Amino acid sequence: MIVAMQEKATEEQIDAVINVMEEAGVDVHRTTGEFQTILAGVGPTATLDLTKFEMLPGVLHVHRISAPYKLAGRAWRPEGTVVEFRTGAANNKAPGNKASIGGQQVAIIAGPCAVEDREQIFAIAESVKRAGGRFLRGGAYKPRSSPYSFQGLGIPGLELMREAADANGLCVVSEVMEIAQIEPMLPIVDCFQVGARNMQNFNLLRELGQVRKPILLKRGMAATIEELLLSSEYILSGGNYDVILCERGIRTYETSTRNTMDIAAIPVLKKLSHLPVVGDPSHGTGRRDMVPAMAKAAVAAGADALLIEIHPNADKAVSDAAQTLYLDQFEKLVAELRVLAEAVGRSL
Amino acid sequence: MIVAMQEKATEEQIDAVINVMEEAGVDVHRTTGEFQTILAGVGPTATLDLTKFEMLPGVLHVHRISAPYKLAGRAWRPEGTVVEFRTGAANNKAPGNKASIGGQQVAIIAGPCAVEDREQIFAIAESVKRAGGRFLRGGAYKPRSSPYSFQGLGIPGLELMREAADANGLCVVSEVMEIAQIEPMLPIVDCFQVGARNMQNFNLLRELGQVRKPILLKRGMAATIEELLLSSEYILSGGNYDVILCERGIRTYETSTRNTMDIAAIPVLKKLSHLPVVGDPSHGTGRRDMVPAMAKAAVAAGADALLIEIHPNADKAVSDAAQTLYLDQFEKLVAELRVLAEAVGRSL
Amino acid sequence: MIVAMQEKATEEQIDAVINVMEEAGVDVHRTTGEFQTILAGVGPTATLDLTKFEMLPGVLHVHRISAPYKLAGRAWRPEGTVVEFRTGAANNKAPGNKASIGGQQVAIIAGPCAVEDREQIFAIAESVKRAGGRFLRGGAYKPRSSPYSFQGLGIPGLELMREAADANGLCVVSEVMEIAQIEPMLPIVDCFQVGARNMQNFNLLRELGQVRKPILLKRGMAATIEELLLSSEYILSGGNYDVILCERGIRTYETSTRNTMDIAAIPVLKKLSHLPVVGDPSHGTGRRDMVPAMAKAAVAAGADALLIEIHPNADKAVSDAAQTLYLDQFEKLVAELRVLAEAVGRSL
Amino acid sequence: MIVAMQEKATEEQIDAVINVMEEAGVDVHRTTGEFQTILAGVGPTATLDLTKFEMLPGVLHVHRISAPYKLAGRAWRPEGTVVEFRTGAANNKAPGNKASIGGQQVAIIAGPCAVEDREQIFAIAESVKRAGGRFLRGGAYKPRSSPYSFQGLGIPGLELMREAADANGLCVVSEVMEIAQIEPMLPIVDCFQVGARNMQNFNLLRELGQVRKPILLKRGMAATIEELLLSSEYILSGGNYDVILCERGIRTYETSTRNTMDIAAIPVLKKLSHLPVVGDPSHGTGRRDMVPAMAKAAVAAGADALLIEIHPNADKAVSDAAQTLYLDQFEKLVAELRVLAEAVGRSL
Repeated sequence: MIVAMQEKATEEQIDAVINVMEEAGVDVHRTTGEFQTILAGVGPTATLDLTKFEMLPGVLHVHRISAPYKLAGRAWRPEGTVVEFRTGAANNKAPGNKASIGGQQVAIIAGPCAVEDREQIFAIAESVKRAGGRFLRGGAYKPRSSPYSFQGLGIPGLELMREAADANGLCVVSEVMEIAQIEPMLPIVDCFQVGARNMQNFNLLRELGQVRKPILLKRGMAATIEELLLSSEYILSGGNYDVILCERGIRTYETSTRNTMDIAAIPVLKKLSHLPVVGDPSHGTGRRDMVPAMAKAAVAAGADALLIEIHPNADKAVSDAAQTLYLDQFEKLVAELRVLAEAVGRSL
Repeated sequence: MIVAMQEKATEEQIDAVINVMEEAGVDVHRTTGEFQTILAGVGPTATLDLTKFEMLPGVLHVHRISAPYKLAGRAWRPEGTVVEFRTGAANNKAPGNKASIGGQQVAIIAGPCAVEDREQIFAIAESVKRAGGRFLRGGAYKPRSSPYSFQGLGIPGLELMREAADANGLCVVSEVMEIAQIEPMLPIVDCFQVGARNMQNFNLLRELGQVRKPILLKRGMAATIEELLLSSEYILSGGNYDVILCERGIRTYETSTRNTMDIAAIPVLKKLSHLPVVGDPSHGTGRRDMVPAMAKAAVAAGADALLIEIHPNADKAVSDAAQTLYLDQFEKLVAELRVLAEAVGRSL
Repeated sequence: MIVAMQEKATEEQIDAVINVMEEAGVDVHRTTGEFQTILAGVGPTATLDLTKFEMLPGVLHVHRISAPYKLAGRAWRPEGTVVEFRTGAANNKAPGNKASIGGQQVAIIAGPCAVEDREQIFAIAESVKRAGGRFLRGGAYKPRSSPYSFQGLGIPGLELMREAADANGLCVVSEVMEIAQIEPMLPIVDCFQVGARNMQNFNLLRELGQVRKPILLKRGMAATIEELLLSSEYILSGGNYDVILCERGIRTYETSTRNTMDIAAIPVLKKLSHLPVVGDPSHGTGRRDMVPAMAKAAVAAGADALLIEIHPNADKAVSDAAQTLYLDQFEKLVAELRVLAEAVGRSL
Repeated sequence: MIVAMQEKATEEQIDAVINVMEEAGVDVHRTTGEFQTILAGVGPTATLDLTKFEMLPGVLHVHRISAPYKLAGRAWRPEGTVVEFRTGAANNKAPGNKASIGGQQVAIIAGPCAVEDREQIFAIAESVKRAGGRFLRGGAYKPRSSPYSFQGLGIPGLELMREAADANGLCVVSEVMEIAQIEPMLPIVDCFQVGARNMQNFNLLRELGQVRKPILLKRGMAATIEELLLSSEYILSGGNYDVILCERGIRTYETSTRNTMDIAAIPVLKKLSHLPVVGDPSHGTGRRDMVPAMAKAAVAAGADALLIEIHPNADKAVSDAAQTLYLDQFEKLVAELRVLAEAVGRSL
């Protein structure tokens, strides 16, 4: 950490700051120039609340100079993490449902916003298989902003999804919204999704650190890249190293898309962290007509996977209809992405 | 709802849109001008996912023309809601610990970010009493963005706070972070706070709708005013009508304050809703030196209460030190606010 | 400046960075801790493009530790600047048209978005006088976002405003949009306003540094507080020390108000700079019904003046109608502000 | 336009609104449902200030239902605009310096932030030619946020750039910062760039509408897509139809990149407008290490051209050093983009 003192800081103020730093276990190096004194602190600053230094008398600025996360940092695993999937269904007999995210191949994760019925989810699973995707994602618990909207089928919805996935050799990804849902979901899903609204639900993250299935962690609507990495640290520090990060658009003043998809977050995350990164052009734009262009942009920028909302009757989907692709649109898009992936040195 | 068709929309497309609207139970009125057709829909549109209309062929724009919330709307209770407090502690013997938020008087809610020990919380409770405040707020469960930071004392911390409050005739406000905490907290606290990160934790909100103690609902860091009102609707629709809204700063590009306190949200919320509104200048600015000016601004703009972080040894507070006032600063500020409140037709 | 090196930075990389710093005339102090080397640089860093250091091999972060502005800084004039006004009209015979902004008294600057005709501007000037205000502001050149909107009356409009101001003992404030307008405006106005869209029109600012009349500089819609101060530095460094800063709302994701008025910018600017600060609740909210609450908030937070849009027939104003107060609303508001100003130790 | 009345609006209020609409030349269609009256207005609403309706008594919301721009709209030229370049230098003898932006081929526009000297600009021009690019872009007038920074070489810098361009068969693109610069620049440049800070400098835009050379119009740092199109309308309505739009990143709360490059703006603009769209990954990220990924993302999303900052000695560039590619990095990137362009059905 660096504490830059004001030009007019007194020796007394400087000593007081040094004392507080040393009390916190920090080793202090002082540099006094012509105008200003700078205190460089080395030690356990990652776990320190730096804001407390900002208000000490005579202090101008305080800067953190090391990243506040460790396990999520690229330095921890410079070669990058590849998350391997294995189905969690005890009764699983379907062959070939192993897959990975983070390697040379770009993965396709697709499905409906909400599981609605058997016919719907089977049609979707078959489309994912046809397209060459390996992950079926669908919502069973739906966090809706209005209390008057459809709230999801719950466990029966998950079981339908499991069946459809097994029949097509796919893995199941579904959102967990609270701690109590982990246990019933655990035998059914292959990967827990943490939604944007729960990115800083630290109790939930801590519990998921105890689970031994991969976690797909979505960036919060107004979260910084650093905050996303700090949230992943909660899971990693519990011993669950299979975390996948997801860029799904942030909130800005622009309203022509539902969110502003921060495509640059993909290469920035790949540089700062060893964890795989997924792009979600469906939530990232909120508009079906923009999904293909943004799916391509995400792959071109280095995404390890895409998360795409699809539905056989997209306009009648019970939620997020506007951003959902029809199955034929989806299959055509994946074919185009396959060509693109090769042009950037990946496969799909 | 209004559906504006594109200039080139065909009769077939218009009919298809009318069909989808009518299937959703909406009564449709068609207006065709020289260039464009407009479809006005009346009916159960509050519970409708309007985005599904946006992608129908030939549609230009879809607008919601009625607010998607009902119970939170000003029209529901034009005279405004006054939330009355009564202590929930079974063994409570302290006199005078009734209070209200939303009436003519501006309420003061103050306390530490985190309860640390008996000495700390008693010193604070005495200061709140001296200043004329009626609400002691402190954190027992702390949602920290780093897994390596202090996480709060839990129930023993709440019990300390209850004791300090009772000894000084104060009500207890504390944050609930998940459903499992409601039951143990219920006999101890007088008011549950829902933090910014949980504003859209709809399962938690729904449970709090079943509770019969007031809820202080903080605006999410990137939530719109409409989303805050929709979240309050979750609680109200469960039958808990004692909801207090809180403006605590939103995330913007400006970094000289930790958040940008949206003071205008106070009069906007007062206009749109009957619920009382609290201003939180501590989180709103993140800087102790800006708290007084912003506390005054909030009262001048019509806030029904202020939420202020205080600590006898603010620089050593275990969290949020930079934004925490010393007790003497707090008491001086409340004295100044008393004069100000009268200048805007309130008391304190 | 501080350069924090990466943990794995080599001695070679560190030496290379030191070289670049020294070439730039910076005196370097090196601190090497257990993990990391920190380079503190003292010297002409205010004029240095620090971004060039960020990309040097082995560099983790670069921080500026001194403010990049000097003349605008509070340290330059700790006692604060009071801008004194004198009318610029050669033929001015009206008595009493001296005034100031930045002292103990809160100034009222009011007028129409656009000067429309003699009757309108005289009615407004009389209202400003009745309310006790000293500044008449109106637009003669209108920067409209649509090329098809009304663009202003130009110099004849300014002359009408001068006449109305002289008849009522007021000073004239009007926006200058480009360098070529300075000369014709100079004999007519008492104060040049630089609009939000021109806050970083550095050529215009440089020219205004040569003028010897006060400049009211509005914060850009997406400008940081530091950028506003840097822009004021352009004017100050030309020798024109009479600069007044204006907070008029910034662009955020919230749409219930046209802009989000950053009330905290007022006390932050007062702390960082010696320049007077004006609040503009009209542009800050874009809504007539929110102007009174936000005008009060601005004064409570320490504003030295208010800029308010008024019109005798507000709903028919040719521009910005929604945010414009009727004259009676304005006069009532100023009466209320007078009481409020006293409650915060000011007069009006 | 649509005016949605409040549920409690009186007949008197409704009539008053209808009157104001009709006075503005709008043809009104009224729909009264069970709860609410809706007024649909058809007519010259593009040039109308709709905000004035928002504050009329009894009005709930006002919506614009047609785009406020016309000439920039896709409907004006459904086939899309291809901007053809021809060199403006009278003494130009170099062969092959014709090029286009907006067709099947993706164009490369590259150069230094600021022209520094002959050696620098010739080295850069040769690199652009080697890479297969056709546009040399460099700054002669530099809008710097600090008055103490390098401000550019002016016309001599442009002449150097012209010479280097002619020697390599390139077109010259350079930024115009004010009206007075148009005339001296006109004989030298092939394309005027309007920078982000001038996107709403409407006087400048209007003058550029009179010019008969292409204009590259950058999106403002906080401008919406609609505002960018309205600004282009200023130029188009003067008769200059050769406008190229540029996405260069918007300001958000995220700080890991200098701006947040809104890649989705590219396909959105392509859908709404017929004008070509350029992506600027240099300003879009502000970081050299992120330029390649974002250049690829822009092309994958449909950009018609890229604008890339390059310098033979990037770390010593006098401005924007951090975001500037070295020449070999640039040439390698263009080779990779060539493969990518083909994968999305373009050439380069």
